[in-house]
Amino acid sequence: MDADPVITLTTDFGMESPYVAAMKGVIFTVNPRARIIDLSHQIPPQDLTFAAFFLQESIPFFPSTAIHVVVVDPGVGTPRNLLYVELEGHRLLAPDNGVWTPLAGGRLKEARRLTEPRYWRPTISRTFHGRDILAPVAAHLSLGIHPDLLGPRVERWVELSWPEPRWERNRIEGEVLFVDHFGNLITNIPAEPVMSAASVRIQAGGVDIPDRVAAYGDKEAGSLVALTSSGGLLEVAEVQGNAARRLRLGRGTPVRVLLRSSG
Amino acid sequence: MDADPVITLTTDFGMESPYVAAMKGVIFTVNPRARIIDLSHQIPPQDLTFAAFFLQESIPFFPSTAIHVVVVDPGVGTPRNLLYVELEGHRLLAPDNGVWTPLAGGRLKEARRLTEPRYWRPTISRTFHGRDILAPVAAHLSLGIHPDLLGPRVERWVELSWPEPRWERNRIEGEVLFVDHFGNLITNIPAEPVMSAASVRIQAGGVDIPDRVAAYGDKEAGSLVALTSSGGLLEVAEVQGNAARRLRLGRGTPVRVLLRSSG
Amino acid sequence: MDADPVITLTTDFGMESPYVAAMKGVIFTVNPRARIIDLSHQIPPQDLTFAAFFLQESIPFFPSTAIHVVVVDPGVGTPRNLLYVELEGHRLLAPDNGVWTPLAGGRLKEARRLTEPRYWRPTISRTFHGRDILAPVAAHLSLGIHPDLLGPRVERWVELSWPEPRWERNRIEGEVLFVDHFGNLITNIPAEPVMSAASVRIQAGGVDIPDRVAAYGDKEAGSLVALTSSGGLLEVAEVQGNAARRLRLGRGTPVRVLLRSSG
Repeated sequence: MDADPVITLTTDFGMESPYVAAMKGVIFTVNPRARIIDLSHQIPPQDLTFAAFFLQESIPFFPSTAIHVVVVDPGVGTPRNLLYVELEGHRLLAPDNGVWTPLAGGRLKEARRLTEPRYWRPTISRTFHGRDILAPVAAHLSLGIHPDLLGPRVERWVELSWPEPRWERNRIEGEVLFVDHFGNLITNIPAEPVMSAASVRIQAGGVDIPDRVAAYGDKEAGSLVALTSSGGLLEVAEVQGNAARRLRLGRGTPVRVLLRSSG
Repeated sequence: MDADPVITLTTDFGMESPYVAAMKGVIFTVNPRARIIDLSHQIPPQDLTFAAFFLQESIPFFPSTAIHVVVVDPGVGTPRNLLYVELEGHRLLAPDNGVWTPLAGGRLKEARRLTEPRYWRPTISRTFHGRDILAPVAAHLSLGIHPDLLGPRVERWVELSWPEPRWERNRIEGEVLFVDHFGNLITNIPAEPVMSAASVRIQAGGVDIPDRVAAYGDKEAGSLVALTSSGGLLEVAEVQGNAARRLRLGRGTPVRVLLRSSG
Repeated sequence: MDADPVITLTTDFGMESPYVAAMKGVIFTVNPRARIIDLSHQIPPQDLTFAAFFLQESIPFFPSTAIHVVVVDPGVGTPRNLLYVELEGHRLLAPDNGVWTPLAGGRLKEARRLTEPRYWRPTISRTFHGRDILAPVAAHLSLGIHPDLLGPRVERWVELSWPEPRWERNRIEGEVLFVDHFGNLITNIPAEPVMSAASVRIQAGGVDIPDRVAAYGDKEAGSLVALTSSGGLLEVAEVQGNAARRLRLGRGTPVRVLLRSSG
């Protein structure tokens, strides 16, 4: 027998609110076999850039059979569309806000506008489409219905503006994308060129980061280090400490790398 | 084959404490097929009104097959009863504290006092009945035992005093029941009469809320609006902002509505 | 058919980071039938003592079939080992940091160093062994592979230094191990001798705790009481209040008990 289908949930609802619980109930009502997996409900409210980073760092590790529901929805109740989105190996349901932009690398295999109310809850609130449309559609998909049934194909969708690093000759200008639970600063700069250069100068918010290391444990506690994040990005960390607190830096802080090739 | 049975957990334990984890272990020990679903473990400590609101907004969306364990228990270790409670379409296990009052609309189909130690853990602590009694009873129920076996029927139970709005001719006096993660203020006033009146004056904590809208997106960012919450209650929100922070209002804040019928 | 296998996750990652989500994806990729259960992702960063307490209070309640992944890993990227650990009735995967010391009571049935890359992700980051090694190894174990295949047996492992209480004739000197969500102070002192003594004097951080009770409800709200925690340890609590906040005490606070036998 096939494994029960996985539906993941990523929202900015917080677990203290009853909204996530309601979505879980709706999913089970449509498909009692669903396996519902919480990815996070602590996306900062309406923060699409954060959500996009979160998805980029987590969805690629899932098998293509999973269905991902992502509800970070500043435009709930406006005429913005709700979409079924298919990209290489992954399927998402989300408002048309481009939250999948970095995950998809700008390329979607298919997008469909959710227009078929047969797969929705019978009454639709104006403030909670996650519960009334996205959750039941995910559950129907997990039962095996074909995405064609959900609504018409669309060829245009919102792209999220994403802070790309700028390269100028031997300089990379980027910024902090994400501060994790440990206070590590994950930047939007790919780590490889930085780590492989013969010599570099790395500045985060104007502070020099003296050492490049392969792992936190390569320097003693309290050292400020640059390393490759688990997602392949340049990361600034304090060994066994909290770099964000120590340097008083956060998301959006400029990060600059000067590359000096050998010789 | 039937779907594996769903057991949901709602507690005020917080996830940093090992209490939720222990309950999950106990459930799996009794029924290895259970699907355990976290609704929330962030109910404010011992806050029955909050928990009651949470249940009212989430449990109705679940199929009747789910078993809901609710542990918010200011009286743990006192002689208060533990109950199995059946209401229209839903089954709960909880201390006898009336947390289901608004969910049940005051009507229970059946309540039973948990007295049969055969379905409990072999040793019962005085401080953690969620782990020692409610969790294993839920797991046994999920295995299909008949509720009759759990203990005798009771005809009296605690009712939670619930802040009902007061109507005086064309005036409704209510209060804020819940502040969600976005700072939206959910009141105890049903939205329908407020939204359908020809003209209204809405005051939250003495502040006039100028506009009624169908959805957040109907006004520009920063507007204070009144709308229908996803649960059908009157809600006060700041579009793309945090009304609770802006107005410095919270649970219990008085909300007053003056209805002016057309003409 | 057998129940789908349970894999539990305990980390210090926080749910706002994408790290837990990535681990879940890796597990499902290897074993689509896994049931993934969150124990906690709110272990304070790199706090092995806290994690060890957490495991001691939760893992014993699980059936032996569960596989427990515990990622609190101050030494990630250093040459520290990753281990498969088997103790009476439970199996864990964790870095070699002794986090299981109190759970195991110092006794392991077997420990194996994870050396067999066949069960890992194809590429291994230096900063996230939880995702790249522990998660896929757990998923392979849940598919039924024999632990012998994971790597060679080891006979030495790190023991966590654990704050044991000191006994001096009729005096016990201990400390607060854990402050729970309610502000209850759980100490490292076994409750039984304290609760069964004819007479005692209990001091937490120099403050006398006047009463021993069997349950919170035995004294009125606001009373400071000593009782037996749900894990069998001496606990100091304020009835329907928050003892930690009231006494301004926390982890590590000395707790002293003077036992006076009858007569």
